[in-house]
Amino acid sequence: MGRSVDEHVHQVAAVIRGAAQRRAQDPPLECRVVPGLTGRLAAPAVSTLDVPGFDNSQMDGFAVYAADLDRAGDLPVTLPTVAHVVAGDTAPPRLDPGTAAPIMTGAPVPPGADAVVPVERTRPGDFGPVAGGGLVEFSGPVASGTFVRPRGADVRTGEAVLEPGAPLHAAAVGALTVAGVTTVEVVPPLRVAIVATGAELVSGAVPDSNSRALLAHAHELGLAATAHVVEDDPAALEDLLNRLVTDHDVILTTGGVSAGTREVVRQVLEGRPGAWFGHVAVQPGGPQGLARWSDGAREVPVVCLPGNPVSVLVSFELFLRSPLAQAAGRVAWRPSGTAVLTEPLTSPAGRVQVRRGRMEPDGRVSLVGEAGSHLAVSYARADLLVFVPESVTAREAGDTVEWWRIA
Amino acid sequence: MGRSVDEHVHQVAAVIRGAAQRRAQDPPLECRVVPGLTGRLAAPAVSTLDVPGFDNSQMDGFAVYAADLDRAGDLPVTLPTVAHVVAGDTAPPRLDPGTAAPIMTGAPVPPGADAVVPVERTRPGDFGPVAGGGLVEFSGPVASGTFVRPRGADVRTGEAVLEPGAPLHAAAVGALTVAGVTTVEVVPPLRVAIVATGAELVSGAVPDSNSRALLAHAHELGLAATAHVVEDDPAALEDLLNRLVTDHDVILTTGGVSAGTREVVRQVLEGRPGAWFGHVAVQPGGPQGLARWSDGAREVPVVCLPGNPVSVLVSFELFLRSPLAQAAGRVAWRPSGTAVLTEPLTSPAGRVQVRRGRMEPDGRVSLVGEAGSHLAVSYARADLLVFVPESVTAREAGDTVEWWRIA
Repeated sequence: MGRSVDEHVHQVAAVIRGAAQRRAQDPPLECRVVPGLTGRLAAPAVSTLDVPGFDNSQMDGFAVYAADLDRAGDLPVTLPTVAHVVAGDTAPPRLDPGTAAPIMTGAPVPPGADAVVPVERTRPGDFGPVAGGGLVEFSGPVASGTFVRPRGADVRTGEAVLEPGAPLHAAAVGALTVAGVTTVEVVPPLRVAIVATGAELVSGAVPDSNSRALLAHAHELGLAATAHVVEDDPAALEDLLNRLVTDHDVILTTGGVSAGTREVVRQVLEGRPGAWFGHVAVQPGGPQGLARWSDGAREVPVVCLPGNPVSVLVSFELFLRSPLAQAAGRVAWRPSGTAVLTEPLTSPAGRVQVRRGRMEPDGRVSLVGEAGSHLAVSYARADLLVFVPESVTAREAGDTVEWWRIA
Repeated sequence: MGRSVDEHVHQVAAVIRGAAQRRAQDPPLECRVVPGLTGRLAAPAVSTLDVPGFDNSQMDGFAVYAADLDRAGDLPVTLPTVAHVVAGDTAPPRLDPGTAAPIMTGAPVPPGADAVVPVERTRPGDFGPVAGGGLVEFSGPVASGTFVRPRGADVRTGEAVLEPGAPLHAAAVGALTVAGVTTVEVVPPLRVAIVATGAELVSGAVPDSNSRALLAHAHELGLAATAHVVEDDPAALEDLLNRLVTDHDVILTTGGVSAGTREVVRQVLEGRPGAWFGHVAVQPGGPQGLARWSDGAREVPVVCLPGNPVSVLVSFELFLRSPLAQAAGRVAWRPSGTAVLTEPLTSPAGRVQVRRGRMEPDGRVSLVGEAGSHLAVSYARADLLVFVPESVTAREAGDTVEWWRIA
């Protein structure tokens, strides 16, 4: 049973989204608000402060009573200045009507004053003596509230800074800090089990690079992941799945899903309720599967990838990176674009071909390595994935292709 | 002196690139190849294995002597089968001419055999008895080498898996693992000092959210960063810069660069060789500076950001995120696109306005918070930056805007 790339993208995304929603029901972690905080908020983070903490000036200028400038439309109004209010001042004295206070951006607006006029709209256009005792001329009226940032305009004490589900990125750390929030409740991270199948991995005849690469991807996204290797033996895989289902939220397998005679993942999972095994219209990464595993008490989704290293990496980019990143509260989309090829390529009909490429200094795309799904080193040397649509069987040098940035 | 956004992007990128190049001259770190490895390679990583380690099959099929099928163009050729070769087998017996070995994808091609015919191009189209002793019919010839992945095709023992400068991402961890590389020499990470200026921060009147947010950004990119707060006092800032220059590669400052009377960063750095302070045509984030600080022995660049929290975050996204990510070997570009607005907005002439927004379920973009650069909480609630070009002063609901994804 075949599937388009888009359909499998949606199916896997739905499965990961479901796992993340179930995980969000688990008891939250209490975390300190520090750089390095990741994940998503489990409960509203409530502000302990008004932000800003006081009415303050949005401009370098003069704090005034707006009413004093009402008649400045006809004739300029000149006011005497008082001492300069600077950022860091906490309690400037009350401003007397009929005077103006030179004020810095961010400095507290003196009690009484209700507007700020930018210095460049005054004469002589500077702040005058720091201690006050100068004169400043205004050539027009000003509305009450102009260039005043009111206390609590960003958030008020007791209001939620961020709601459940909010990603805890750098800007969130900044906002929580400014609102005086020191600890937050965080959704525990999705626990991902990575299962590599294959006697050649258990024996060490071939290094288990798939698990390492998937662990590294999970690490980059801030997910908790464990890695496991299992023989091509259905009973051994079933035992392992029964152990993993108790304390993981998603299981990823590599290998054992294609048309050979020892396809252990397929043998164990195909035909179970909700399982799908088949071909996605992509090369490499065609053989794919989706299933559920239950030990009777708990059920988790199993996303079954093919076993060749390039197929694993391409499958991760196409199907897993975005939904896993979303669960982790990260932006991990790949930059993409189009460019012309430096060389020709051929591609199978009816499948999206994904090649490895490099962006040349002149903005064209060259290919890195052949199409073979075993060329893990070539993949690591590339900085682009290059996409050839299903309907295309050949592209010439100078033809346009779509690319995704992977490095 | 004014600058376009693009010009400042290029200037800051050049400064960070220079700092990264100087840092790459420092002694490399020897790091184990494990998930969690980051940064860039300092020296070639040399393969200790041939990859693949043996000639192996690219398909599920039959390993044959190609010469045996030369005459299969006219009449089908039928060969007796020997025992099945599976992945995990390390030393299959030599294939006798005139026989065919059923073989799994990835399994070693038996000595003597030089081509693989996929099972679906044979009759009866299955693998026959696992122990051999069956018959298989081929209806066409096959070229020597077909569907055989030669030993060492990806990389050979003693060849470089990856060259200096290569980013150590998940695919690199996979490639190094498959090539038997257990340790690599890594360029030491860029050491970033973050300096927040302002009496209101030192006194605690306003929480220092800028440093926290910048530390969190640095952490996300895998950079080493330290944070410091200093009074609006030129001597104190000079002292701090003298201490930081000895063991940091880039210094970022926030605040103290605009037109007020206590602009300590500008006072200390403006007019020094190579320094530029002025206005970039963007709102927020207009006042910017670039300088160098030297203690006589060592010189590092100083990138001077404005002090308002939203200005800091927008400046980081526009000017710093991409070059710092590049130094760290990360892909950290922001996904971008265009969409129509749900509501009108106004924007200053001659400046790119950067607003905070949200992608609505219908694909339109709504605005989050006002334009004010003090609204740090609104920023953290947004998932988009929304860009209004310099030449535009108003947009209506339904008009198209450009966005970048930030969450």
